[in-house]
This record gives sequence, structure tokens and C-alpha cells, in this order.
Amino acid sequence: MSEVVKTAPHAPPPLKARRFGLYAQHESIVLMHRDCHACRSEGLSPRSQVLLTSGTREVYATLYQMDGDILALDEAALSEEAWRLLGVEAGDLLTVRHAPTIESMSSVRRRIYGTRLDDTAIDGIVRDVVAGRYTPIHLAAFLTATSVLPLDDAETVALTRAMAGVGEQLDWPSDVVMDKHCIGGLPGNRTTPIVVAILAACGLVMPKTSSRAITSPAGTADTMETLAPVDLDLPAMRRVVDAEGGCIVWGGAVRLSPVDDIFIRVERVLDVDTEGQLIASVLSKKIAAGSTHVVLDIPVGATAKVRTREAAAKLSQRLIEIAARFDLKALCMQTDGTQPVGVGIGPALEALDVLAVLQNRPEAPPDLRQRACLLAGTALELAGAAKAGLGAEAAEAVIADGRAWARFQRICEAQGGMRTPPVAAQRAPIHATRSGRVILIDNRQLATLAKLAGAPDRKAAGIQMQVRLGAEVAAGQPLLTVHAETAGELAYALDYAASHGDMIEIDA
Amino acid sequence: MSEVVKTAPHAPPPLKARRFGLYAQHESIVLMHRDCHACRSEGLSPRSQVLLTSGTREVYATLYQMDGDILALDEAALSEEAWRLLGVEAGDLLTVRHAPTIESMSSVRRRIYGTRLDDTAIDGIVRDVVAGRYTPIHLAAFLTATSVLPLDDAETVALTRAMAGVGEQLDWPSDVVMDKHCIGGLPGNRTTPIVVAILAACGLVMPKTSSRAITSPAGTADTMETLAPVDLDLPAMRRVVDAEGGCIVWGGAVRLSPVDDIFIRVERVLDVDTEGQLIASVLSKKIAAGSTHVVLDIPVGATAKVRTREAAAKLSQRLIEIAARFDLKALCMQTDGTQPVGVGIGPALEALDVLAVLQNRPEAPPDLRQRACLLAGTALELAGAAKAGLGAEAAEAVIADGRAWARFQRICEAQGGMRTPPVAAQRAPIHATRSGRVILIDNRQLATLAKLAGAPDRKAAGIQMQVRLGAEVAAGQPLLTVHAETAGELAYALDYAASHGDMIEIDA
Repeated sequence: MSEVVKTAPHAPPPLKARRFGLYAQHESIVLMHRDCHACRSEGLSPRSQVLLTSGTREVYATLYQMDGDILALDEAALSEEAWRLLGVEAGDLLTVRHAPTIESMSSVRRRIYGTRLDDTAIDGIVRDVVAGRYTPIHLAAFLTATSVLPLDDAETVALTRAMAGVGEQLDWPSDVVMDKHCIGGLPGNRTTPIVVAILAACGLVMPKTSSRAITSPAGTADTMETLAPVDLDLPAMRRVVDAEGGCIVWGGAVRLSPVDDIFIRVERVLDVDTEGQLIASVLSKKIAAGSTHVVLDIPVGATAKVRTREAAAKLSQRLIEIAARFDLKALCMQTDGTQPVGVGIGPALEALDVLAVLQNRPEAPPDLRQRACLLAGTALELAGAAKAGLGAEAAEAVIADGRAWARFQRICEAQGGMRTPPVAAQRAPIHATRSGRVILIDNRQLATLAKLAGAPDRKAAGIQMQVRLGAEVAAGQPLLTVHAETAGELAYALDYAASHGDMIEIDA
Repeated sequence: MSEVVKTAPHAPPPLKARRFGLYAQHESIVLMHRDCHACRSEGLSPRSQVLLTSGTREVYATLYQMDGDILALDEAALSEEAWRLLGVEAGDLLTVRHAPTIESMSSVRRRIYGTRLDDTAIDGIVRDVVAGRYTPIHLAAFLTATSVLPLDDAETVALTRAMAGVGEQLDWPSDVVMDKHCIGGLPGNRTTPIVVAILAACGLVMPKTSSRAITSPAGTADTMETLAPVDLDLPAMRRVVDAEGGCIVWGGAVRLSPVDDIFIRVERVLDVDTEGQLIASVLSKKIAAGSTHVVLDIPVGATAKVRTREAAAKLSQRLIEIAARFDLKALCMQTDGTQPVGVGIGPALEALDVLAVLQNRPEAPPDLRQRACLLAGTALELAGAAKAGLGAEAAEAVIADGRAWARFQRICEAQGGMRTPPVAAQRAPIHATRSGRVILIDNRQLATLAKLAGAPDRKAAGIQMQVRLGAEVAAGQPLLTVHAETAGELAYALDYAASHGDMIEIDA
């Protein structure tokens, strides 16, 4: 069939762009008057997905409608994100029409019904996601579907490649480009800034891009941001690395694997982050960053993200094999994941630990220093810059003689100037209710406590630990101190602590 | 551990409620000034989930922030839905705080990781959903998780019971309370209003509640709404049934299984509706409606929702067995699902077909009349009101002598007054490009075409079919006519038709 009556190409009536000062995180929103002619002629209802067009730019947005006199009939009021993406000025003309059907959602539906996806299908999904066509509902469906029936190796490779392919791709004039990554889940494990400082001081190239927290109280980018700007664009990042050999910047700002950041926002709400997604997330950024070697830190513990040595071994094998498909040499290290690393949990509090180690201060947490040196040493060995078995020792020496601290300061200055981490206005200690020995520390509950206190969005919020496993404590002795920026958040955190008395277990 | 410093119970600063005239479908939204003291003291960021409290009422909402002078610093501007649920007047005081953690999401996470849920877990999820605690992301995760690893019988029974339990529960002073339901997927299959009219005319009690469309161009409630009001509350519904023996109202308005409507909104976006969810959706409403007997119409066809006789048999068995667990006697009928029923597709166009059948008009679609009589006849037999094998004949007689039409008019009047279905302003025919015989009609593509034309939200929009399977057509002869309320929607539909020439296949 299908000879249709030819109509003139359909053009919706234009509207005037208005900056509404609406902050909706990363959501593109357009508000239009309920009685506006464009809504009527296009048949647009509240919460329609629409396509905004101005000149050559297109933005997918969610429509809301208003009555009353705040909006004129011919205005389209934009959220800050939509305003930025569309690149309009006040009064510029734009059109609003129904968003076209998302073609790749048919692949997501097939996946929900149990059919595995090939490269083309996964590529289509990632392209639609990066174009902003997926609403949170579509994103949640894709991420859940690939969690319940986990991504297999072929799908994980395809997702990794597709995610690496849709953003910026870096390359560096060096045969060895070093990277490291921790498979999260261990509060306070903030070795990256120390490792970068050591390796850069040893002459290696380490253009480190880090993510913000997914389900943890702080990501490396969150912590580093309290010490220096991290939202550098690509030319700025390149200048820092050219000058200092290393950097610690936020991956989202340089648009490496931008889809990862979109996924992460939904994973954070769901508190779900499964193996295939984790591998694609980690490796797509390393590949896009132009890394040749990567050391992966996998903390293992009953309340870490990876709970057993067997699971860690399986994950390591998949990471190494899939990395090899992209000519990326990966080395995985299983590390102790039974308790937090260092003293601080939360962006600023972890930054203080990092500074203490780099500055060689006596109160520096020895576990953080040791882990950082182990990772840096392994990287030195992997790159041929230290003899086998002697890497950690070499790394220790670089901290001890001040070269790491000097290099770190130079990196911070190059990134835009060193900052002093903020200090929380609100603090409250939590005390031991009995005397005895600390026999168990629940990383997950501590992470939740720190998040309720406001981390990672409130930089100064979090926890300072005052005990470690094996410590003998007396009843009434402080176990930790909660830091918050506001009284409301401190109250939420303390409410949680009061009902979770097993967070730190004491054996009499 | 866990002796916390006792603080006074935390109370966020109050704000003044402002009705913002914001239409966001069913979404509760609160807008606050970026610099307002409550955002600062509570640590609230854009897109935080918050709990609004005023007096004894609580509403979960999504927070957006604004700068500029549209909002005062002490104002909380509410969307229409939040305004209605919170029951405030302009200037009333309310508080905004972080929404508490959703306890039942831990069950959803366990389900994502492959653990089946028990009754208590499913009950917790349904209770949190009906309380409005789940965002679209959480809902999409639950619905996707129970689609990829489908709900088993125990979970389906638990979900059915939980869904039936959180809304209103009807009971009727009659031993036999009849119901019918069609497992959708067949455009134009609008037998319900006819069946209710026949059975009520025969003295049976049939308090029919219907849903709106999930993924189809019209649900029975959408169609019936063009003929009479359907958003009756419980006392009004009871008055209609007491007076006339039957009604056809929207289930959402009487809050039978209100969670079903919440799920449906997300399922519609995803275009996903799997077996366990379908069974719980159908049966929870029948149970809550106090039905004792139900006839289920299962159209079978390559492009219907159920594609094979085997799948229909399996679904029938599950429906009957699970219904029996709730003392509900179900009877399933497999019907022809190879092409649309009647002539119209879309709310008003289907209503015209219903009227033609009830009014005994010569142009009434014979297939619609026959299906309605078969279903009504089976129901009469099931209820003992007709002898085995003679039900359909009895139903035919009730249409032929005008009793069904008379009863239908009385029901419409009792529901608030009979209406005339609206007529579309925009129409365009689609013509055969060759001569030959119609050998295939794609229900799914026709449904998409009708939806692009605006159905079900635009009541007059949809399709009028001008051919059926087996028809001999000449090149240039119209196959169907697209109806739309706006030029924009007509254009979207025609664009789709132009690129889907295999919607109606003609064999030369």
C-alpha cells in the first residue's frame, strides 16, 4: 500500500526562547503555556518528549505546561541545561515538535525479552543515549535489563567499544601511557592523586581522568576538586600533562565516554552497578584516554564491592581479557577491603589524608601510604621503570624525599591553582557503648552514613574514623565523627547511625 | 557502638505554598529558589527527592530550583498534582526535607541480582509505590527486572494480592458478579460496552471497570469516555450499578488497584507489558472489583499481543489457576487476532462502531457484533442464565430487539449523560499502490499509526479501515483514512505510513 497524499513539509510554529533560570541537574526541560498555539497544533501534552530546534542545533527535552501569566503564549522557557545545549540567546526563535521514535529502544525491548544484542544494536543504543534521546525511564530499563541478564563478553566488548567511540579520543606522544583505577566500594581508598604524583615525578606519562562517585561518598574527581579545579577541557588537560607528566581531572568535562556519566547518574539512583557495566565503564574511559597500561585495584572484603577472592579473580580475568581486545595491558591487584582506608571518608576529608601522605607528615595514615606505594610500584614495574619486586620501595623513596609532594603541587597549580579543602560547620561524635575490641567494620553502612551527611555533593561532609579493626576501645570513647555542612544533614546522618548500631562491632 | 549525641528533633524551616499552575501529568514537583534557606539548611540539590509535609499530609516530590525573581526565597511552588495531593491553600505553610530512603528498593535490588521475592517483599514494594515513593527510574527498574526474569507463579500471586489490597475493594449484594476482559493487542476490539449492555439487559450484575490504553491506541475507558463520563467515584459507580445492573467506568477513578495505573504509565513509555505483570494487572482489578466470574478474550495472531495458540493456552492456564487462588472463576476464549475488529481504531472511531452494533444499523461491523455476542453468550452460560451452546443466540436476540441499546443509553445517562463522539478536523486517505488481494494486515503498525495520529490522548484521532483480509482492491483505491485533531499529528502519522508500506500487504 502506502501512496500517501503529499502534504507540504510540516513546520511547527516558532516560539521565542526564554531563559527560565531553572536548575534541573542534567535534565533538558522546556516549559510552554498550556494554551500556546504550538502545543495545540502539535498535539503536545505535559511530559511529552519533544525535539527543540534552533538553527542547526537540536536538543531532546521533556515538556511541561503552565497556565497563568508567568509565560507568554509564544514563549518556550528552557532549563539551564537545554539553554546551554541549544546555544540560544533570549528571544531567538526555536521550534518544538514531538521527539521522533527512539529506534534503538526496539533493541532494549528485545534484550528485556531475553535476546542478546549484537554490536550494531549496542552501537545504536549508545548513540541514542549520547544524543540525549533516552529519558531516565529508558536508561533505567536498559541498565536493569543488562543487570538481570548480565552482559556477556561479546556484549561487554561491544558496549566498551561503543562507549569509547562516542566521546573524545585522546592520544599521547609516548609509548607508555599509564593509568590506574580502583573498582570502588572501599571508603577512603583515595590513592590516585598520590600514585599520579609519584609516577609523574618518575618521568612517566599519566593523564588521569577520574569519575565522580556512583554509589560511594566520594569519587577521585570529587576529592581532587577540593584541592584543585578538575573540570578542565581537553586543551587545558593536554597542557597540564605536557608540562607535568600527569594530571587528575574529571573525565566528564573532557567528554571521555560521556555515556558513562549518563549511565552513572541512573545507577546512582538505583544503587546498582553490575559487572559488565563496570567493565565497560572502566575500560571505555581508559581506551578513550589513550592509555596503554593500567593497574587495577580490586579491594576484597565482606562489605566491599567485591566480596570474595574468587569473585575478584573472575572479575580480574574478564577485565584483563577484554582490555587485551583493545591493546590495553591490564594488571589487577587484589587488596584488603575489610575496612576503610585512611581516616577520612568524603571528598574534603579524604583530601586531607592525601595531603598528609604527600607531605610526609607523621600523622599520615600508614595504610593509605602503603597502598599508594604498592600500586605506584607495580605501575613502575609494569612500565619497566623499576626492577621486578623493587617498585614499591622506589615509590616510597619518591614520597620520602618530597619529590611526590613537589610534583603534586605543580600539577595542582597547572590545573588552575591549589585549593584548601573546606571544613564542615557541623560535627558530632559517635561513641562506643561498650568496652572491647573492634572486630568488624561495615563499609557499606559507613558509606551510607557519609552520604546521608551530604557527601559527595557537600564537599566537607563525611566521616573521620577514630578506630580501626583490632583496636581496643573503652565505653564512651569516640569511634568516629560525622561531619556535615548543614544541621539538617547532620540530623539525617545521626538518625541513621542511631538505628544501625552494628556499623562498628565491638567484642567484649 | 552507636550512642549518638542527642539533638533536638530536626525541623526544617517552613515555606509558603504557591500554586504554580504547572502541569506535569501525574508528577509531583516542587520548585524552590536556589538561595532559599530551606535548600541550604537541608542540603537540597536540583532533582533531589523530597518529602513535602503540611499538617498531617505528606507528598513525595521532585525538587527543581530557580534563580531570578519569579519565586520568593520563602516560597515552595507546587505542580498541580502536588497541590492536589497536599491539599493546601495559597500561603499555607509546608516543610520540605530529604525523602527518606525507600526501604523496599533493597528488594528490587535483590531481584535485579536474581533473587526471587516473597510476599512480604512484594507487599513492601507495592506499598511504597502507592505512597508515591518510587520515581520513574525506580518503577522502570522494578518492571524491567520482573520482565527479564519473569515473575513466577508465587510472585504473580503475591503481586496480584498486594495490588488488589492497596486500593478500594468493592462488594456487591449478588452471588454472581460478572466481568470480562480482553488481553489487548487487537486494534478496534471494543466489545466491552456491548457485552455490558447485553448482560445488564439480561438481569446480570456487571460493574465493569476498564483501564486506559497501555501501548494501544485506545482502552475501553478511552473509548467509553467519548460516549459518557467514566471518571465516576465509588458511590456514583454503585448508584449506576444499583439502578441499571451494569456500568463501564474508568478503574483509575475508583482507585481499584491504583498501583496498576502507576505501572501502566511506565510500561507505556517502555512499550513493555510481560505475562506476570499482565496477569497481576488484570486479576488484581477483578478481585478488587468484587467479581466472581470473568470471561477473558485472548486474540491470537502473528501481530496480536499473543502470537500463537500455544502461548494463548499457556497464558490461559496461568490466568485460570491464579484466578482460582482468589475464588474467581475465569474462562478464557481464544479469538481471531489476525486483523483489527470493526472499522474504527482510536477512541471516538471505535465508539462509532459500538453505537452502530447496539443500534442494529445495517452498516454495523459484523465481526464486532459477532465477537460481542460470543463473549456475552459465554458469560450468560457461565452465569447459568443461558443453556450451554445457546448463549450467543440469546445475546444476538437482545441486540436485535433493541433491549441492549435501550440499556446502554440508560447506563450512559446514569453515568452522567450520553455524549456524541468528537470528529477529527484533519483527515487523509492512504491508497493502494497496486491491484490485488489483501493478504496481511499488521496490527502493530496500524496501532503505531493511530498513536502517531494522536490516539488515545486525542479522542477523535485514529484510523478508519476500508479493507479487510481477503478483499480484492484496485490500485488507487483507499485502504484506510487517517484521522487527526491537528495538522502536526496528521503529518507525523503520514510520514510513518509513507515509510511502512508493508502495513497492508497486497498480493497481485
